[in-house]
Amino acid sequence: MYLEKVDFDQMPDRYKANFFNHLNGFKSANLIGTQNDKGQLNLAIFNSVVHLGANPPLMGFILRPTTVERHTFNNILKSRHFTINHIHSGIIEQAHQTSAKYASSISEFEACHLTPELDENIKAPFVKESFIKIALSFKSDYLIKENNTRLVVGEVISVRMNQNLINSDGSIDLEKAKSVAISGLDTYFSTNKLIKLSYARPTANLIK
Amino acid sequence: MYLEKVDFDQMPDRYKANFFNHLNGFKSANLIGTQNDKGQLNLAIFNSVVHLGANPPLMGFILRPTTVERHTFNNILKSRHFTINHIHSGIIEQAHQTSAKYASSISEFEACHLTPELDENIKAPFVKESFIKIALSFKSDYLIKENNTRLVVGEVISVRMNQNLINSDGSIDLEKAKSVAISGLDTYFSTNKLIKLSYARPTANLIK
Repeated sequence: MYLEKVDFDQMPDRYKANFFNHLNGFKSANLIGTQNDKGQLNLAIFNSVVHLGANPPLMGFILRPTTVERHTFNNILKSRHFTINHIHSGIIEQAHQTSAKYASSISEFEACHLTPELDENIKAPFVKESFIKIALSFKSDYLIKENNTRLVVGEVISVRMNQNLINSDGSIDLEKAKSVAISGLDTYFSTNKLIKLSYARPTANLIK
Repeated sequence: MYLEKVDFDQMPDRYKANFFNHLNGFKSANLIGTQNDKGQLNLAIFNSVVHLGANPPLMGFILRPTTVERHTFNNILKSRHFTINHIHSGIIEQAHQTSAKYASSISEFEACHLTPELDENIKAPFVKESFIKIALSFKSDYLIKENNTRLVVGEVISVRMNQNLINSDGSIDLEKAKSVAISGLDTYFSTNKLIKLSYARPTANLIK
C-alpha cells in the first residue's frame, strides 16, 4: 500500500497521531524529573530521549508545546538540572499515568505512586524505583521551526545504576535492567536479544 | 553505584562510547537511503530517528560528523529527499554492515546485498527488503553546537507498507512488521508486547 499526502490529509486526527507516532519504530521509555523554584517536584514521560555524543556525554529529548511538557521545560530553564530515569517493566502503569494533565499544584510523584530520590547537589528528583537514573545539566535548546517543538540538550553529570548492569566493554545490559521500549504513545514492550554484531569493516564477507 | 564526571573521564574511549550509546535505552533501527547528483545510491544505518510531529508529519535524525554519515547529509542537501526504512529481523546483518566505511565509489546496497527500490518522483532509494518504507522531503537542519552533531528534519511525503500492519486506530503493528530495536551501536532485539494503555487522565485510580 502506498500512502501519500492526500491520504494523510484524510486521516482523522487521532488516527493520524497514532500512525505517525508509530512510524519511526521502537523508542526509549523514560521519565524526566524536574523541580520548580519552590522545590515542587514534576515528573513526565518521554519517548524521545536520544543519544547525542559520548565526549562530552550529551543527551537530548524532544519537547512538544503541550501543558504537561511545558512544566518540565520551565523547571529546567530555572533549575538548569533534570533527570532521565529508565522505565522498567515493573513501573509501566505509574510511568504512563504521569502523562495525565494534573493541576499545577499536584506532583506526579504522589499522584502516580512513584518515589522521589533527592540529592543536595542536583536540583531535580530521580525516580527511586528506576534502575538506571541519570542527572543532566541543561546546555541549550533548539527550536524546531517547522512545528514549534524543541530539542533540549543536557550533559550527563551523574549516573546511578547497579554495577552488574554494566558489561566489561562498557555496554549496558538493558534487558537485565528490565528497561522497556515504546511504540507510539501507549504500547510497551520487553525485548529479546537477537544478536550483537562486531564493528563493521568494508572487507567483511557478507554471505547471503 | 554512582558514576560522575571523574569516572567518565577515566573510562577508555571505546568503553565510554559503549556506555553512553546505551544510556538512553532502546532505539529505533532504520536505514536511510539517499542518492547523489550522479544517481549513485547511498545507504546508512541510523539508530536516532525520532518522531517530531504528526501535523505536518515530521521526522528527524541525529547526524554525527563522521565520513559515513556525511555522504548521507551531502546527498540530502542536494537532492532534498531521503528515505527511512525499518530494519527487520531478516536483514539485521546486511543493515549493520552499511556502517562500514566503504570507498565513495561503492554503493552500500551492492556491498551489503540490499536492493534499491526506485520511484521516479523521489530522488532517494527505498530498501526493497524493508517492510516499512518512508520517503521524506528535507526541511532543515539544526547544528547542535555542543558537539557539532546535527538534527536533520524532514516531512513525510510517502509511506509504503502492507495494509495489514496498520491497526484500526491508526497505530502500526511493529511486531507484525518484525521491526527490531537497537541498544548501543551493535545489539539488536525483537520485542514482546507487554501492555497497551489508554490515554491517561488525572482522575484515573491507580491502585498500587
